[in-house]
Amino acid sequence: MAKDVTSYEKNYAQWYNDLVLKADLAENSAVRGCMVIKPYGYAIWEKIQATLDKLFKDTGHVNAYFPLFIPKSFLSREAEHVEGFAKECAVVTHHRLMNSPDGKGVVVDPAARLEEELIVRPTSETIIWNTYKNWIKSYRDLPVLCNQWANVVRWEMRTRLFLRTTEFLWQEGHTAHATKAEAIEETLRMVHVYEKFAREWMSIPVIVGAKTASERFAGAIDTLCIEAMMKDGKALQAGTSHFLGQNFAKAFDVQFATKEGGLEYVWATSWGVSTRLMGALVMAHSDNNGLVLPPKLAPIQVVLVPIYKGDEELAQMRERLQQLKNELADKGIPAKIDDRDNVRSGFKFAEWELKGVPVRLALGPRDMQNHTIEIARRDTLEKQVLPQAGVAGFIEKLLPQMQANIYKKALDFREKNTFTVDSYEEFKQRIENGGFFLCHWDGTAETEEKIKEETKATIRCIPFDSPDVPGCCMVTGKPSAKRVVFAKAY
Amino acid sequence: MAKDVTSYEKNYAQWYNDLVLKADLAENSAVRGCMVIKPYGYAIWEKIQATLDKLFKDTGHVNAYFPLFIPKSFLSREAEHVEGFAKECAVVTHHRLMNSPDGKGVVVDPAARLEEELIVRPTSETIIWNTYKNWIKSYRDLPVLCNQWANVVRWEMRTRLFLRTTEFLWQEGHTAHATKAEAIEETLRMVHVYEKFAREWMSIPVIVGAKTASERFAGAIDTLCIEAMMKDGKALQAGTSHFLGQNFAKAFDVQFATKEGGLEYVWATSWGVSTRLMGALVMAHSDNNGLVLPPKLAPIQVVLVPIYKGDEELAQMRERLQQLKNELADKGIPAKIDDRDNVRSGFKFAEWELKGVPVRLALGPRDMQNHTIEIARRDTLEKQVLPQAGVAGFIEKLLPQMQANIYKKALDFREKNTFTVDSYEEFKQRIENGGFFLCHWDGTAETEEKIKEETKATIRCIPFDSPDVPGCCMVTGKPSAKRVVFAKAY
Repeated sequence: MAKDVTSYEKNYAQWYNDLVLKADLAENSAVRGCMVIKPYGYAIWEKIQATLDKLFKDTGHVNAYFPLFIPKSFLSREAEHVEGFAKECAVVTHHRLMNSPDGKGVVVDPAARLEEELIVRPTSETIIWNTYKNWIKSYRDLPVLCNQWANVVRWEMRTRLFLRTTEFLWQEGHTAHATKAEAIEETLRMVHVYEKFAREWMSIPVIVGAKTASERFAGAIDTLCIEAMMKDGKALQAGTSHFLGQNFAKAFDVQFATKEGGLEYVWATSWGVSTRLMGALVMAHSDNNGLVLPPKLAPIQVVLVPIYKGDEELAQMRERLQQLKNELADKGIPAKIDDRDNVRSGFKFAEWELKGVPVRLALGPRDMQNHTIEIARRDTLEKQVLPQAGVAGFIEKLLPQMQANIYKKALDFREKNTFTVDSYEEFKQRIENGGFFLCHWDGTAETEEKIKEETKATIRCIPFDSPDVPGCCMVTGKPSAKRVVFAKAY
Repeated sequence: MAKDVTSYEKNYAQWYNDLVLKADLAENSAVRGCMVIKPYGYAIWEKIQATLDKLFKDTGHVNAYFPLFIPKSFLSREAEHVEGFAKECAVVTHHRLMNSPDGKGVVVDPAARLEEELIVRPTSETIIWNTYKNWIKSYRDLPVLCNQWANVVRWEMRTRLFLRTTEFLWQEGHTAHATKAEAIEETLRMVHVYEKFAREWMSIPVIVGAKTASERFAGAIDTLCIEAMMKDGKALQAGTSHFLGQNFAKAFDVQFATKEGGLEYVWATSWGVSTRLMGALVMAHSDNNGLVLPPKLAPIQVVLVPIYKGDEELAQMRERLQQLKNELADKGIPAKIDDRDNVRSGFKFAEWELKGVPVRLALGPRDMQNHTIEIARRDTLEKQVLPQAGVAGFIEKLLPQMQANIYKKALDFREKNTFTVDSYEEFKQRIENGGFFLCHWDGTAETEEKIKEETKATIRCIPFDSPDVPGCCMVTGKPSAKRVVFAKAY
């Protein structure tokens, strides 16, 4: 078990926080609720960004950038939207400081009060649709398929690194379409892009489905989502894609001339994932030794550690390891030699395990003689000794196997912790231990609210790929079209 | 001349603004001084970002992310720093809105006033050095070589798209070193990275040098810069690299245990370039037909336009153009076929010239018969007819030639507009027409200020690569070690 890391059986929340800190992913800053994303954490985020960016461009999207600030009056234009965001936003009221009259530091200059307050964007629908008004005149201007990589601010009262922070990084896609069908198609397309990314890069199986009305994005007609299971059996919403109907087009008066000569409101979608994915990555795969990074998102895929006595031995080993590193580089495998002289190799092993590096190579004196090397897999913790010749090729084949194995472990875990339950009594007991519960629900907000109040579990989604087998609501006994997914959630 | 674009001889400022708008680079938003970077402009910025990011990583830097907000008290810690930034910052004072008592919209909730105001970062030295305090304990923790890609806000009273906006995008490197020499070396390294980027990617020759004391960054011991000449003969500061000494380490008490067992303050640098580079790109190369993009930064390097009558001809041409586009793609050359049916080819030619696409291929009915194609260069506006076979290879060779030619034109222009002047009378007359002036200056802030007041010209830098030939100050006649560069500047 990693030093200074609480075991997850003992205290899951503390284990998570310890890992994020000790693996150098992020830390709290001097600003309440705002985090510092440290270089190692940011390197993972860069891989997430680069991959998603390519997936967005492959599906026809382009990037743009819209202002950080939103005039207060814009938020109010869409009634549900302001209701959803007004209570947690950072408000800029002044544009200048001045020397304090008492000579101590600086104070806000009362003469520099803004005529209209500016909100630091919690999401950008309003400022973007105000912009789209000028971009869209005719059906020829559609679709508009923009994405933005940006920081947003939501004034959260209880924050946790990556999972819920006042400022976070994200991407937000905002698209405009001529028809309802096209916008709905886009909403679906993007939730499936997220599903694919979670599966193929993050090695996280997710349930794709629709949110219930009470869990929808403020201003959306329909919110689709991907839901992942964390190792404590709780759900984490990892991405959302919203069909916004004509709500924002109407709020900002965005109409277009149709091919037929009419004038119609534009149809909209928005979709986003955030640095929250980093939290999902940690909580889906890690163990008490630390992170387990899927190879595709690991900034360092292989760490090479010499086990040496004296400078002469180190020099020889360094040369050999450099050759191996070059062989790995030729195959596009990022590797790092850890030849620090102030810590023991056992310390190094623990540190790289903590940081989730997929493969560790250790080279000892006997290996030098025998032309062998010890290879250790982070996902299974298995070790074996291999001939040095061909080890790069071995690793090249191993990494995708590890990627698949990490996915399989997460899928097995989710399946083991997904339960079909028909009795509300049983549900109430078992939900305490975590897991996904497939249950019938009568479709009303009242029942949903009652369950939430009594158990803290929410409907994570109405899944797309579950069979349409009707039944009776576990609480009211009223008819239900299909089972929905209940869980406690982050 | 491009439609709706003012000629630059007539009104340079209006010409610039017209180009930025008409070429779809950016536009003003509903928020005073904040711009929307449109997809075409952002695609250029993405190329700038990707290139610089690689140059930073190649020189050993890593990316991280620090909070958007800075506690007000942090700004005051470094006396010059707060002096420099307090007068132009966005201040967050509240964290919640509420429904207006009069039922109209939302108002700031007075109960949600922050205990300490937060400043939207105008630059991040203070929040970063407060973080580094926890990262740096020993000489083994040094150097720290972090860069951040972020948005910053400076409340500018007079804004211009890209050149001076309230919010802008930038990168800011913040490094920490054990010795003064190492920090100075880093400051130099990075200004030369900027110089290389300007030269090789932006095709802009820049003068590298040091700022005078009065033009230094608030809190720096020394500010190095790259200065570029725009087409109106004015200078544009395109990047800066600061040697910060131990100022921020002292302000935030960042000390490290030396190898020898002592305790010393850490040495710092910071360096940045911003979306201002987009303005430099426009103003260094464009003409009255529009942008002239250096091929390496052009999102679309080749546009292919069919000149057709009727659907059948279009279908044949589209097929041929698609083949050519594929051949270009095989060589890594991004190309676009413009087969719009609602505008004439003359309109298309003008539009792609306006957008600065380096190469245009036009395919007419005679070309289809003769297996030829017309190629037009954006930089020289020269056209020629070539056999279709081999045109991709021709373009592959042409693009680097164009890149070099655009650089040469800018260099020739700068040389033609750089003057060695020894008389202040002559200086005062000639500075009105723009250009760089190499003059002797006595090294005092008083003389510098007098010149600025009387001519609006400033010392852009004390250039590194000019000969150390002493002389007499053109204003006071006092001794001067070497000529400095005067110009009016953006």
